[in-house]
Amino acid sequence: MDISSYMHTLGEHARLASRTLAAASTGQKNAALHAIARAIENGRASLLAANTKDLEAGQHLDGAMRDRLTLNDIRIQGMADGIRQVAELPDPIGAINQLNYRPSGIQVGRMRVPLGVIGIIYESRPNVTADAAALCLKSGNAAILRGGSEAVHSNRAIATCIQKGLEEVGLPRTAVQVVETTDREAVGHLVRAKEHVDVIVPRGGKGLIELVSREATVPVIKHLDGICHVYIDDRADWDKAIRIAINAKTHRYGVCNAMETLLIARDAVAQVLPELDRRYRELGVELRGCAETCGQLSDIGAASEADWDTEYLAPILSIRIVDGLEQAIKHINTHSSQHTDAIITEDFSRARRFLSAVDSSSVMVNASTRFADGFEYGLGAEIGISTDKIHARGPVGLEGLTSEKYIVLGDGHIRE
Amino acid sequence: MDISSYMHTLGEHARLASRTLAAASTGQKNAALHAIARAIENGRASLLAANTKDLEAGQHLDGAMRDRLTLNDIRIQGMADGIRQVAELPDPIGAINQLNYRPSGIQVGRMRVPLGVIGIIYESRPNVTADAAALCLKSGNAAILRGGSEAVHSNRAIATCIQKGLEEVGLPRTAVQVVETTDREAVGHLVRAKEHVDVIVPRGGKGLIELVSREATVPVIKHLDGICHVYIDDRADWDKAIRIAINAKTHRYGVCNAMETLLIARDAVAQVLPELDRRYRELGVELRGCAETCGQLSDIGAASEADWDTEYLAPILSIRIVDGLEQAIKHINTHSSQHTDAIITEDFSRARRFLSAVDSSSVMVNASTRFADGFEYGLGAEIGISTDKIHARGPVGLEGLTSEKYIVLGDGHIRE
Repeated sequence: MDISSYMHTLGEHARLASRTLAAASTGQKNAALHAIARAIENGRASLLAANTKDLEAGQHLDGAMRDRLTLNDIRIQGMADGIRQVAELPDPIGAINQLNYRPSGIQVGRMRVPLGVIGIIYESRPNVTADAAALCLKSGNAAILRGGSEAVHSNRAIATCIQKGLEEVGLPRTAVQVVETTDREAVGHLVRAKEHVDVIVPRGGKGLIELVSREATVPVIKHLDGICHVYIDDRADWDKAIRIAINAKTHRYGVCNAMETLLIARDAVAQVLPELDRRYRELGVELRGCAETCGQLSDIGAASEADWDTEYLAPILSIRIVDGLEQAIKHINTHSSQHTDAIITEDFSRARRFLSAVDSSSVMVNASTRFADGFEYGLGAEIGISTDKIHARGPVGLEGLTSEKYIVLGDGHIRE
Repeated sequence: MDISSYMHTLGEHARLASRTLAAASTGQKNAALHAIARAIENGRASLLAANTKDLEAGQHLDGAMRDRLTLNDIRIQGMADGIRQVAELPDPIGAINQLNYRPSGIQVGRMRVPLGVIGIIYESRPNVTADAAALCLKSGNAAILRGGSEAVHSNRAIATCIQKGLEEVGLPRTAVQVVETTDREAVGHLVRAKEHVDVIVPRGGKGLIELVSREATVPVIKHLDGICHVYIDDRADWDKAIRIAINAKTHRYGVCNAMETLLIARDAVAQVLPELDRRYRELGVELRGCAETCGQLSDIGAASEADWDTEYLAPILSIRIVDGLEQAIKHINTHSSQHTDAIITEDFSRARRFLSAVDSSSVMVNASTRFADGFEYGLGAEIGISTDKIHARGPVGLEGLTSEKYIVLGDGHIRE
């Protein structure tokens, strides 16, 4: 197989299909989503058979990976239900904003439009195939999906259901295409296909995202690290501070919006540090402190410089005592991965200063960093979280797969 | 000089200064702009002296280029006035949008923030130095400016005035830095400095933009071509159609929003083509037609396939007769550079269809393509026009130099 020409053809088909999708009505897109959900439910037997092939070929995989790869009745139903939920979301496409008359007499506004073609690169979780396809379709975009090679049979079977649903409502089956080769070279072509692909969304671990970002010339919606901070100000409410510091670290450890470094104003140390120390110990969290923190607490490790730049994704927390707000802001703007950072304070002016000075994709006052999430933010869905500044920033919902074009309405107007 | 370490230092200074600028108040930024305008007026003698050096070194340059390079009293006053106009624009930074309560009790909204550091690459027009610096400053961004090497003395002298103004109001002089080396290698470093530069804006001809885009790993706000179309529908008002077709082609020839291809519905040909032919001839516009157009008009050239993909920027127009709306849309989505395309029709449903189906950064109904312009759209300024879909699309004003971060306000809220 000539990978280059295969990917080129895939891209051309996607570009062509994207024109039809861009002009598809909300009703037609929703009908397609419901038809796809039905096709997945009805295709249960073939999905399980395909998945068995993947599982047999993947006997060398570790338990967690096999688990993610496995389809069963509940997960198949979950895919269908997820697609129907996407159908329920408001359609972002076609919304016209800020349509105003100009002194020349023309009306100028912005219309929300699909990006065009989205490339999704993910690991061996077959359910991402259904989920990603649904989000692209709802936002009027064609999709090229490249899942992990271990899931190739499952992904093809899911794609067959998707394409069946698309055809049922008269949309092109090429609106959602799965890359059928497991050759790594295909990814390289996909992320450099500027002519055919408008944005790449990698879904998976940091290794995958780094790989994709390094090679891509097409824009990538991504975040690499979640080095999130909570700063406890000396004008904090101590109960809120302790509650949030515990929640941000221990609600879940392996997630990108978990706190990794706690900053405490010197004048707040006596009120919060002993209690936090006790609670973290109970919960089995290892603490690593700056020299001053180590002086306050017995029996904790010293944080090295590298700790301030580390995303533990584990029951480990680095703690630094700072002079106050300005040093906290400086620490955050130096060490944060620009994902999510929070201040705990009852002081209005300090809250206001923190909100404007911290350069992260989510900045919070008196709330747990764990709220940084598309569903919690009301986006209805989450395609990913972006720590870049161009295009989407923070949790990315359907709107992140769209753009706005200008529309101009006149009555024979010419420029004098 | 070690260009790599020089550019690295410039980048680090810019990143640092960008933190201060991001938190600067509207009043402080406006005061800086007024101080810069005064410094330019007061620096007239040194600006003229520096410019004389450039003109002496540039005696080999052609007339047009020397003209662009030249500063005189009027142009110096123009720079100062332009900067004061930017001070009058509304400050986009800090605006909070869509701040809503979520079921969890947190408030979630978006705050407009600067991108951070903008790299501007331009040709030998010293006034761009002042203009670009003002726009970056107003939008809270630090700027690294790299102008054409022929203008290096003038640009340094302007930068001195800018930095004087910045210092006068207590902002860091490194908020606006001019690259002082004329070594081409500096551009290469600038457009790949992902760590220090958030976006590159090339201002100049297509050659410059292509060069920058090819080398850049930092995102670039740009458009390459302006292959703009007007489609005259068979339900057009003939007077409006003729007026707009003349204006879009002949108002100015060398601009990116001039029409390059006219599409005419077959059933409109008799009503508009003879009159347009007469008018274009009077105005000295060379016509190149499809076979059918050539059959209608005597004495015009045949358009080759290449003509449909050519930006003439000259008194030349290609004309194609199409079956109707759908063929026009197909032609445009195939050949347009996605800059600006217009339909002339009185038919409501066709106008609606054209607006949604044409995938260009500006789509117009019954208006001249010449309106695609930041000032005409009410943006107050124009940094450039983007035909990309990611980030800014269409004419780019101050908002194109900004991004939105999420803010979350709570009262001790944690995730359950």
